[in-house]
Amino acid sequence: MRVKSGTFKGHFRTVTYDAQNNEVVLIEQRLLPHEFKFLRTRSYRETAAAIRDMAVRGAGAIGATAAYGLAQGARAFAGTNLRRFEAHVDRVFETLKSARPTAVDPVNAMQQVRQAMAPGETPAERISLALAAAEEFANEDVRHCEDIGRQGARLIREGMRVLTHCNAGWLAFVDVGSATAPLYAARDQGRQFHVYCDETRPRCQGATLTAWELAQEGISHQVISDNAAGYLMQRGEIDLVIVGSDRTLGRTGEVANKIGTYTKAVLARRHRIPFYVAIPLSTIDWTLRSGREIPIEERDPGEVLGAWGIEGEPGDWRGGGKPAGKGGKRTYVRIANPASDAFNPGFDVTPAELITGIITPVGIFKPRELWKNRARLRAAVIR
Amino acid sequence: MRVKSGTFKGHFRTVTYDAQNNEVVLIEQRLLPHEFKFLRTRSYRETAAAIRDMAVRGAGAIGATAAYGLAQGARAFAGTNLRRFEAHVDRVFETLKSARPTAVDPVNAMQQVRQAMAPGETPAERISLALAAAEEFANEDVRHCEDIGRQGARLIREGMRVLTHCNAGWLAFVDVGSATAPLYAARDQGRQFHVYCDETRPRCQGATLTAWELAQEGISHQVISDNAAGYLMQRGEIDLVIVGSDRTLGRTGEVANKIGTYTKAVLARRHRIPFYVAIPLSTIDWTLRSGREIPIEERDPGEVLGAWGIEGEPGDWRGGGKPAGKGGKRTYVRIANPASDAFNPGFDVTPAELITGIITPVGIFKPRELWKNRARLRAAVIR
Repeated sequence: MRVKSGTFKGHFRTVTYDAQNNEVVLIEQRLLPHEFKFLRTRSYRETAAAIRDMAVRGAGAIGATAAYGLAQGARAFAGTNLRRFEAHVDRVFETLKSARPTAVDPVNAMQQVRQAMAPGETPAERISLALAAAEEFANEDVRHCEDIGRQGARLIREGMRVLTHCNAGWLAFVDVGSATAPLYAARDQGRQFHVYCDETRPRCQGATLTAWELAQEGISHQVISDNAAGYLMQRGEIDLVIVGSDRTLGRTGEVANKIGTYTKAVLARRHRIPFYVAIPLSTIDWTLRSGREIPIEERDPGEVLGAWGIEGEPGDWRGGGKPAGKGGKRTYVRIANPASDAFNPGFDVTPAELITGIITPVGIFKPRELWKNRARLRAAVIR
Repeated sequence: MRVKSGTFKGHFRTVTYDAQNNEVVLIEQRLLPHEFKFLRTRSYRETAAAIRDMAVRGAGAIGATAAYGLAQGARAFAGTNLRRFEAHVDRVFETLKSARPTAVDPVNAMQQVRQAMAPGETPAERISLALAAAEEFANEDVRHCEDIGRQGARLIREGMRVLTHCNAGWLAFVDVGSATAPLYAARDQGRQFHVYCDETRPRCQGATLTAWELAQEGISHQVISDNAAGYLMQRGEIDLVIVGSDRTLGRTGEVANKIGTYTKAVLARRHRIPFYVAIPLSTIDWTLRSGREIPIEERDPGEVLGAWGIEGEPGDWRGGGKPAGKGGKRTYVRIANPASDAFNPGFDVTPAELITGIITPVGIFKPRELWKNRARLRAAVIR
């Protein structure tokens, strides 16, 4: 990722490891887009807290954070007793796992690190193998996202107007992202295009994270309300939709993703606009037989009834400036009627028939072709 | 409307006239849903300012406000010279008209008042006729909304889950509302049902005004993000959609309404859910030949890039309570990336083929049947 924010300029990853100080270094995502800063965790417990409290979020990013956290925790062991070391690593594993109990990525990532550690004959050897395995996990996440970019770049033609929903960008991974990977690859190939970012209520990851990423990368973009995409499609002003996915069913090609994704797929079909989903292979679920089996998280009504932001006046930020004399403290405001409640499902499921293609690191597939290509897709997965 | 807010309890109208003090009395809509209070305008200039600054909004409500404002301004004339009186009324008319230059309702309402004044032979007689005509305009607005309720009530069956978008409630009219009229009528007939209010970004009229209205009326409701309706429809949890309209084309049956209406119509069609539009006859445009001719207002990007609300914590309002120790000041927060811009169309156009029926005061019509019923529909219109 390219960042130009305050004193930070250059290439960064969302998650890295500082070997000198045994610290995991994370982009503090709760402060974005209003402040860019790193969070350094000095222990695996702090790393678990960063996952739990969502300083880091996104499938690939929390996977790599847990992998680094396991190695970080292992390295803190003082002693040579292998049995005690393994008992310690068990505790580290459980602590990190419990940080996001429903997420599968941290567990998969840590299992990969533990497997890599097994050949070590001493705690010191196992620590060394763990650190190497965590680093490899992070590098592999980046390579897979780069491969998604290579596969998807040809879809982004000169002058296109592309719609995306939520944030499946580099902030959700170690780098590059999934839905954003084809955009960055096409940009690197010299093509120009415009991105409409759905604001993605209620948590507004499109307006905050995706818009911030695209601004850092210098890619032409505008935020729109989730209500406006249909209008743009009616006017012929959207050529392509790309979104990410939290879980894709290998048997049916159904895609679970942020609430509102299904609506965009329905609109795209009506207007004959290609609708693509970009996914790392680790998010394919080969077991479930129907999208109806996917549990949909019902979230805090307070997310819908209000919003988080920085206090100011609507005109304050024109030209990218800051509000005069305002502290920039992140503030929650209640928008809705104080006596009213809300219903807040976090995800929806888009059926295969509405999806033009699924962009994976090893190729673009029709959603119903995942199953017959399962041998190849499973062989290519990180874990 | 039934209001139970602080010290206000009972039946109110959005717009009334205080004959004793020659003041127009308006519900101050900019403070809702966080504060319920009346604004009294002491001159036609203050009335024009209330329209311009959107203390009052909604087609019927600003029509009645302008009608009262014209009578209020006329009454402030001191003298007996009829020519000078008419010149004065011209100035009042122009001042009120210029408050919302693109709106047709204030002009139509004021023309009706002026016609009614014409037979008066002295300024005093004309003032008296103007006051009566303004009152009649407001009463007629209420009767038409009640008629919409009578026509539409049969669509609302026991236990239904109804989706609405934006605010076409009594706050947008003198009383009763258009899209809400069938709900209030069905409630008065003893039926119970549940309403999902789209929050309606960017200005959130669903989360603020509609949710507040329904809470005042004691009608079961929940706010949802604009992204969540598709999910609810997939699950079979919405039985009916009712929205209002800013302009309906009599020739084609196309409906211009708040941005996002079209998206809900597309989703409703996919799920075979009836989609109704409730309109007063004054919003039918008999001249335009295509929805593409309807000018779509592009609004301030700041509306999409942030939101207005009351500062607090997400949990503060559970059970309808107020945030502890917070002043309740209305605050704007910037949600989006400070360096990003937004595109903010205010309305969209829904084609006739997606609309099950148009609920009018004189009956429910298929959208393409408006034209052949034009004689009857035009005869029944207020003006």
